[in-house]
Amino acid sequence: MDNIFESLPRGAAEEVFADLLKRPGVRIERIVSTGQASPPGFLYDQPHDEWVILLSGAAGLAIEGEAERELKPGDCVFLPAHRPHRVTFTAADEPTVWLAVHIGEQA
Amino acid sequence: MDNIFESLPRGAAEEVFADLLKRPGVRIERIVSTGQASPPGFLYDQPHDEWVILLSGAAGLAIEGEAERELKPGDCVFLPAHRPHRVTFTAADEPTVWLAVHIGEQA
Repeated sequence: MDNIFESLPRGAAEEVFADLLKRPGVRIERIVSTGQASPPGFLYDQPHDEWVILLSGAAGLAIEGEAERELKPGDCVFLPAHRPHRVTFTAADEPTVWLAVHIGEQA
Repeated sequence: MDNIFESLPRGAAEEVFADLLKRPGVRIERIVSTGQASPPGFLYDQPHDEWVILLSGAAGLAIEGEAERELKPGDCVFLPAHRPHRVTFTAADEPTVWLAVHIGEQA
């Protein structure tokens, strides 16, 4: 993928994940959401650190112990390993493009 | 920094670098250029891998052995260690914001 905004899935029923780079200890991923959210009550609890930036669209992010926040393009969040979090919404009318850097992930 | 487009330096004489995240083996950096380019004849020759995405503005990138390319927002480039490259121009009239992920860099 030469441009992160190219070949965007439109109206996909599920979120669409694509690895942009995979090197030992680091994986850079594009995630495209179109209205999806984490299931009610579900929390991600990842065993590795993740840094994420929202590049287009909008999303809500709830991190355990913090106020829910609304993310706009350019917003960056660091999610340390085992920090429970969930996506409360993503824009329904346009693709929400995330760039995620997964650090120290075990294969 | 909560948003990569906040607190952008305007018209700085030099490029402005800021670490967004530093973890063992990974450093995520914002670079803001305003018309700067690599000095004529200069080539970056980094001992570590770098993945970069241009998020605003425009830039020219010359990688040794490849045709020079013009980068627009969203364009991603992987620069393997020791692949000589240079920035041939950046937009003079607006900030060019780069997100760089440095991988396996030695401190």
